[in-house]
Amino acid sequence: MPELRKDPVIGRWVIISTERGKRPTDFPPRTDRIDTRMCPFCPGNESATPPEILALRDNGTAPNAPGWRVRAISNKYPALKIEGELNREGVGLFDKMNGVGAHEVIIETPDHDKELEQLSVEQVTDVIWVYRERALDLQKDMRFRYLMLFKNKGVSAGASLSHSHAQLIATPVVPKRVSEELEGSRRYYEYKERCIFCDIIKQEISMNERVVAQNESFLALAPFAPRFPFETWVLPKFHSSQFPKLADQDIRLFAAILKDTLQRLEGVLNNPPYNFMIHTAPHTNGHDLEYHWHVEIIPKLTRVAGFEWGTGFYINPTPPEDAAQYLRGIVLGQPQGEPLIVPQR
Amino acid sequence: MPELRKDPVIGRWVIISTERGKRPTDFPPRTDRIDTRMCPFCPGNESATPPEILALRDNGTAPNAPGWRVRAISNKYPALKIEGELNREGVGLFDKMNGVGAHEVIIETPDHDKELEQLSVEQVTDVIWVYRERALDLQKDMRFRYLMLFKNKGVSAGASLSHSHAQLIATPVVPKRVSEELEGSRRYYEYKERCIFCDIIKQEISMNERVVAQNESFLALAPFAPRFPFETWVLPKFHSSQFPKLADQDIRLFAAILKDTLQRLEGVLNNPPYNFMIHTAPHTNGHDLEYHWHVEIIPKLTRVAGFEWGTGFYINPTPPEDAAQYLRGIVLGQPQGEPLIVPQR
Repeated sequence: MPELRKDPVIGRWVIISTERGKRPTDFPPRTDRIDTRMCPFCPGNESATPPEILALRDNGTAPNAPGWRVRAISNKYPALKIEGELNREGVGLFDKMNGVGAHEVIIETPDHDKELEQLSVEQVTDVIWVYRERALDLQKDMRFRYLMLFKNKGVSAGASLSHSHAQLIATPVVPKRVSEELEGSRRYYEYKERCIFCDIIKQEISMNERVVAQNESFLALAPFAPRFPFETWVLPKFHSSQFPKLADQDIRLFAAILKDTLQRLEGVLNNPPYNFMIHTAPHTNGHDLEYHWHVEIIPKLTRVAGFEWGTGFYINPTPPEDAAQYLRGIVLGQPQGEPLIVPQR
Repeated sequence: MPELRKDPVIGRWVIISTERGKRPTDFPPRTDRIDTRMCPFCPGNESATPPEILALRDNGTAPNAPGWRVRAISNKYPALKIEGELNREGVGLFDKMNGVGAHEVIIETPDHDKELEQLSVEQVTDVIWVYRERALDLQKDMRFRYLMLFKNKGVSAGASLSHSHAQLIATPVVPKRVSEELEGSRRYYEYKERCIFCDIIKQEISMNERVVAQNESFLALAPFAPRFPFETWVLPKFHSSQFPKLADQDIRLFAAILKDTLQRLEGVLNNPPYNFMIHTAPHTNGHDLEYHWHVEIIPKLTRVAGFEWGTGFYINPTPPEDAAQYLRGIVLGQPQGEPLIVPQR
């Protein structure tokens, strides 16, 4: 059973996955190559994964067989385990509990060679629909306090398989990073009686220096204080605290801007590794007025080093105004090869 | 001039180094190779660096010429700049200020091929002495609120030059990560009227499950809730909040345990890239009772991915009890090659 342990000084929880129990010689050589053995996420290899929890399938196809378009499964090597109770416990001045949670994988396409941003808007809409359905389902488990949906693309962004997929982890505590955001937006709301993200969206659209793309309902921007070069956020323009409450008619608009934004990053940065995380309010309590869900996309271009680990400061060599200009300027739909960048300033 | 910008939601400062102004094509290919051109940190190449601020030298040698054992210089490409005033300023609802600070490099040995842990205890003692002297000197500048001493070893830990060196960055605000630690230790002190680190040290020595090494004045241990596999901390056994107050007679003992601990990591993990950070209380205010300086060493074995970025949770595949056992078990002073590991359980 994995264990959740809390740092007694700063209150950060870590997951000690005792079952993986990696020894010194288990750490892989630091290469940028992805394993090229049989891909368990490809159609025909369904038996190599745990059984599917949800799949969008062609009519008449059987579960755990080819014919699916998007497929959600349990992670074969879960960070947290679905069985068991929390059992909070002290160890002298330390605190720990059982690593209870859920860890699912959403395989975004049957096509081994297509990344999320290369799918059609209709296909990305299907993917987002599955994200939402799995989140709504896991919310019913009373042991879980938070759901984090995220995607790692590329080895240096932490992916262990190259076939396009996202992950969903349900945790039994509200994570520290999330609490900090909730606390920050609550403070602003108490002071202003407005959502801080709604105010940011208004200011960004009016300044128009960091906007990357927008449609009727969504805005993509380079945030004012980005940790990383070309960090890009996607936010609904309408106020909404929880991603899983995304209405059917907005899923397509969200899919469209996510695809558009990822394609811009792919074009400008020559297909970079990246992470994206859906930041959403916990489903368990009422942050509806002050919080605003959004996606944070971080291309993996620089390395986090001692200064960042020690201080929580980040050094970013690319001003977000420049990043937004490059991302706005690229003409999408160009043939492969050198991206066409039209920087104007 | 670099800019400090504050994330309005969670209050994190980032440094936007506008002068570096990296464009999309400036990001280096993601390789693990270090530049092999002329090394500016080698003796004879002193003119390739900014002039030295402090150096331990053989008698009769001239500044900025060979003959030094440890050499402190300004960083040629500083994250923060020494000239100027803070000029805090609003941009709508955002906050920024000038990137005023100091960024120094401490070249730890004239020998290009020796790492810190391969130096003699006497040489490491010289290095720590220079760390302390540069910190004490920068503390006199009233614009600085915090000093972070850290070391990046290896490309994947963020080093851009392989010649052994540490860095010192002085910041005009107390960093978020440091404030969190201060706040956590203050809360414990208010409740218990004891230093939380002193209590941790006592418990760890008594449990003896996570101790890596110790001497008369210092303890190296695998922390109870480590973010990373083989994360290792070094703490003074006596209560002390600020590293730069380290007394002359304790410098050698600190040098000895730091060398010992880094050698153990080098042996068990086959010379891994790593970061270490000296966590110390700000010199500007009174956290003397509740805070306890220490070093956090994080070998770079795994990759930080979407889940960690989104939640602040970490997934660690190696229990600290196992890591401590490997680190304790290795016999130092073996010839190069396969490390001799004596795991016992």
